[in-house]
Amino acid sequence: MCVIWQQASAHVDVLLPGYTHLQRAQPVRLAHHLLAWAEMLERDRGRLSDAARRMNECPLGSGALASTTFPLDRERTAKELGFDRPTRNSLDAVADRDFLVEAVSALANCAVHLSRICEELVLWSSQEFDFMRMSDAFTTGSSMMPQKKNPDMAELVRGKTGRVVGDLVNLLVLLKGLPLAYNRDLQEDKPPVFDAFDTVNSCLEVLAGALEGAVFKGDVMARALREGFLDATEIADYLAARGVPFREAHHVSGRLVGKAARAGKTLAELSLEELRQEHASFEQDIYPALEPETIVERRDVQGGPARNRVQGALQELQERLSQRGIQMT
Amino acid sequence: MCVIWQQASAHVDVLLPGYTHLQRAQPVRLAHHLLAWAEMLERDRGRLSDAARRMNECPLGSGALASTTFPLDRERTAKELGFDRPTRNSLDAVADRDFLVEAVSALANCAVHLSRICEELVLWSSQEFDFMRMSDAFTTGSSMMPQKKNPDMAELVRGKTGRVVGDLVNLLVLLKGLPLAYNRDLQEDKPPVFDAFDTVNSCLEVLAGALEGAVFKGDVMARALREGFLDATEIADYLAARGVPFREAHHVSGRLVGKAARAGKTLAELSLEELRQEHASFEQDIYPALEPETIVERRDVQGGPARNRVQGALQELQERLSQRGIQMT
Amino acid sequence: MCVIWQQASAHVDVLLPGYTHLQRAQPVRLAHHLLAWAEMLERDRGRLSDAARRMNECPLGSGALASTTFPLDRERTAKELGFDRPTRNSLDAVADRDFLVEAVSALANCAVHLSRICEELVLWSSQEFDFMRMSDAFTTGSSMMPQKKNPDMAELVRGKTGRVVGDLVNLLVLLKGLPLAYNRDLQEDKPPVFDAFDTVNSCLEVLAGALEGAVFKGDVMARALREGFLDATEIADYLAARGVPFREAHHVSGRLVGKAARAGKTLAELSLEELRQEHASFEQDIYPALEPETIVERRDVQGGPARNRVQGALQELQERLSQRGIQMT
Amino acid sequence: MCVIWQQASAHVDVLLPGYTHLQRAQPVRLAHHLLAWAEMLERDRGRLSDAARRMNECPLGSGALASTTFPLDRERTAKELGFDRPTRNSLDAVADRDFLVEAVSALANCAVHLSRICEELVLWSSQEFDFMRMSDAFTTGSSMMPQKKNPDMAELVRGKTGRVVGDLVNLLVLLKGLPLAYNRDLQEDKPPVFDAFDTVNSCLEVLAGALEGAVFKGDVMARALREGFLDATEIADYLAARGVPFREAHHVSGRLVGKAARAGKTLAELSLEELRQEHASFEQDIYPALEPETIVERRDVQGGPARNRVQGALQELQERLSQRGIQMT
Repeated sequence: MCVIWQQASAHVDVLLPGYTHLQRAQPVRLAHHLLAWAEMLERDRGRLSDAARRMNECPLGSGALASTTFPLDRERTAKELGFDRPTRNSLDAVADRDFLVEAVSALANCAVHLSRICEELVLWSSQEFDFMRMSDAFTTGSSMMPQKKNPDMAELVRGKTGRVVGDLVNLLVLLKGLPLAYNRDLQEDKPPVFDAFDTVNSCLEVLAGALEGAVFKGDVMARALREGFLDATEIADYLAARGVPFREAHHVSGRLVGKAARAGKTLAELSLEELRQEHASFEQDIYPALEPETIVERRDVQGGPARNRVQGALQELQERLSQRGIQMT
Repeated sequence: MCVIWQQASAHVDVLLPGYTHLQRAQPVRLAHHLLAWAEMLERDRGRLSDAARRMNECPLGSGALASTTFPLDRERTAKELGFDRPTRNSLDAVADRDFLVEAVSALANCAVHLSRICEELVLWSSQEFDFMRMSDAFTTGSSMMPQKKNPDMAELVRGKTGRVVGDLVNLLVLLKGLPLAYNRDLQEDKPPVFDAFDTVNSCLEVLAGALEGAVFKGDVMARALREGFLDATEIADYLAARGVPFREAHHVSGRLVGKAARAGKTLAELSLEELRQEHASFEQDIYPALEPETIVERRDVQGGPARNRVQGALQELQERLSQRGIQMT
Repeated sequence: MCVIWQQASAHVDVLLPGYTHLQRAQPVRLAHHLLAWAEMLERDRGRLSDAARRMNECPLGSGALASTTFPLDRERTAKELGFDRPTRNSLDAVADRDFLVEAVSALANCAVHLSRICEELVLWSSQEFDFMRMSDAFTTGSSMMPQKKNPDMAELVRGKTGRVVGDLVNLLVLLKGLPLAYNRDLQEDKPPVFDAFDTVNSCLEVLAGALEGAVFKGDVMARALREGFLDATEIADYLAARGVPFREAHHVSGRLVGKAARAGKTLAELSLEELRQEHASFEQDIYPALEPETIVERRDVQGGPARNRVQGALQELQERLSQRGIQMT
Repeated sequence: MCVIWQQASAHVDVLLPGYTHLQRAQPVRLAHHLLAWAEMLERDRGRLSDAARRMNECPLGSGALASTTFPLDRERTAKELGFDRPTRNSLDAVADRDFLVEAVSALANCAVHLSRICEELVLWSSQEFDFMRMSDAFTTGSSMMPQKKNPDMAELVRGKTGRVVGDLVNLLVLLKGLPLAYNRDLQEDKPPVFDAFDTVNSCLEVLAGALEGAVFKGDVMARALREGFLDATEIADYLAARGVPFREAHHVSGRLVGKAARAGKTLAELSLEELRQEHASFEQDIYPALEPETIVERRDVQGGPARNRVQGALQELQERLSQRGIQMT
């Protein structure tokens, strides 16, 4: 989380394409993209925290299933052993493992998040995207192909997702259909739980290391913003702001994209005359409107990619971390 | 939940064997057993409630991924639309479905709980256990075998577990490895989510109906308590309370179980003389100590099966329900 | 498999209730029941064997993905290395792991089979069923409850199912969405595969041991056949054979079950007069027709529980084992 | 399958980079890549075919569990009803559904294959790869972004994988721990089975349509082959063939990659002098050796990408299809 915050803080002014359907869609700040990762992981943290709160009950005194003849003050022993409260029913305390399912579910959600982040690292490290260079410690060469620099760590973390999802399914199958109270099957609950925690933990460490040493290539990202007509929406917005019905504005924009594509140009490389052939409302001020920086800054709502919004989000995350005793500077 | 409370309230004085390893272990109150089910379902409720709280964020204004140029007051629109707050990051809002995984995980936990309750209903409805009779509406006869009364509803609910666990795996596989932000794969998130909610909902309704009309056979349960040496622990406790080291007390108890088994008797049917052949400390007061009622009442700790503890647990559950606007009487 | 065959061979003349919905339904031979287990496991064997056949291809010469410049005779090296043939496409050979999914699927099917067999062992070991006694090596006592003899091994094997199903899901999630050819994620294929084989292997060994020392209680099974009206079908068949329309015969049978149940009798304990009150067609020969042995012997079709059919099935299984070099005597 | 064959036949002479770790590795023929997909799907076909063969047994005569008193010739009825043989054990026939698990496992394997193919279609349709253009019928535009052409069908098919894996887990959970013979839970086997078949079927149809209309961009692929040093292996091979120890040859190749990268050149753009600065063995014939076409043709082993090998593979697939009554021309 800290590494994401640091890299995001350092890349507020780097723009890259935001994608939908793996197609370039609209420009965003790299910091904004990295903060999306942070939000995903923050929710995972919240879920684990809820799980910890719910499971923090002391079963001591539940006996084999029917509690104990020993006159135990269970409220007190629970407190003294560091639990929030005693479990409520001796049979239930002995029989259930739903709290483990809950924790491993949260870990599976987290593992899927990591798989998505790693998918992006793998994409961004490809020659086709070329948005980043991972540090040597987190890539490997090839014994056969001396030119290669493979994002192995990201792939391994992505591959570990299956393991955690498998652990979750293991637990659910294990518990299915067991009558109360204790059955020896329950002894098998430990391997998947320990494995899920260990796996996600080590994945987080590896990912933090990989991100820390990653170099993001702002210039390549900027070049990618020039191609793919990410400013087509702006054309439509520009016209709409000048009173053109949105449907018509959208069609004009589409035609201009076609015209530019055929000419091998970007929209901004079309002359004012070429633009006006499709609609008379274009003026010289269309050109600054097509700048990626302008496009991003116009998206100035809470949760959006405009500079001050991203700065606010960084500060807000810093405060959340600070409340957990982690000081970012 | 209400039906469990009602049946539990009505069966505070019915005792049955508590099982471990599906072996009769120690006597408990039927109400205590039913309240274990209630605790399981209450935690499921807590998890769904946490999930609802976490997901109650308004994505409006996230646009296609890069928010919107429209100057939206997202705090205000979120409140007006009944959300707790707006989502924090436009890319994340568009890309993630972890809140669905969380909700369906909670439902999968609940489905597994239902499978366990239904396993017990099926067992208890067998000729071998014969602890209950389900009402005709929730059983079926057989076209070929006129004597049969099958607990079909309990079996169907147990069978539906697979469906909900399958829905959960569906979602996790769906999300695995998707780059940000939106991908059309995400359209496939709805069928498993709706299916999981609908399935668990209808299972809960069927189960409530089945429990409402169920008749528990206290006399059969009482008979089961006589066989299986559920009072063997008491023998050991009795001796231990008279200063016999626990290890020795345990051995004496084991030998007496063997002796009684060979003689085709219960422990309480052994004469004082027979008991004393194994240890001199036995007195006449061993016999009342072997009564199931005594055994249960001696387990008088919080969360235990003693009468006042079960009454307390019933009242406490009643209060929880009352806070949710459900009045039990 | 051998142990099942042995136990089945030794118990051709023991009858027990066959169950549907965990309700006693119709009598079968214990050998017939055990042979059902054998068939389940035989199919698992067939699946593993198909998987082995399909995967027995030699990837040597596939290189990193684009084969090799070395003039390899792949047909020959494949044969010499003990494979059936070389893989067909160098990219596919490097990229795919579907053969592992296939093998682990077969193992998951087997694990589910073992869970079902073990569920029966647990049921049959309960005081309620009391159909068998597992040997001491495969049960454990209780530290707290000296009377207990818990079927721990059967429970553990049942619990291991989750592990193998989890391994399968692990592999499927791992592979989902990976582009060709090799990705480092694939390194993670080994733990679930080895774990699934090891788990199923050790479960089979444990189960074989548990079955070998198991003592089946034919007398208790016989007693269970007396209760539960397993002969109700015979009443209907008896009447139908005497020209009574089946629907009417079925109703008569149902009414007689009710009458007997109210009187606390079995059907065979109803007098001829009582039977005739419901239908005039009953003769003295109804009584032998209600004997479990008669009932079973009347089911004399291939795959049925009649003595000669079960003997035939045993012999047929013996031959299958013999073809695999396993001599049963 | 036919569409893959057709597209492969039409693209024997198109070269593209083969990838490992999503890094360009070595050139292959597009036909070779498409044939890798064909092999994956052929194995799925084989598995379904094995499953069909194994399950093609007639349960008629198994009755409720204990077969029937009707003197049925089960061999004959099985044949007449189109089955290969009757089931072997009446209890097993009623109780098991492993054949459904097997079929849905094969479908899950296939769904994962489709997810991998679709991942490649999505990658290849991105502006970064730009290796193909899918036909309009299988892409969608964007309401907000007029420039977009999203590979929705490929994404949807990829997303459906979760559904089929979920169906498989559904079945396994359903069956886990059920005692013999019939339990009503088994009624729940149908939805996941039908859903899995329907889903995979429609995915195959959609994919066939998408591939049929796809246009592959050989020129872009050729350009991608120029960058990324896919010929680095050839440098090492070239030297090794001239007696340079492989380890040294590999190091020379690595140094030349570094030198070329720094100079912004491809390996083939380095002068003979520049090459010789790293090793004296280079001659003029190194340049043709670095041509992608040469590289591919040197890989002339069975299953490799050389022209005649790919032609052979196409013909061999054509014959397999022909044996199934499908004539490709």
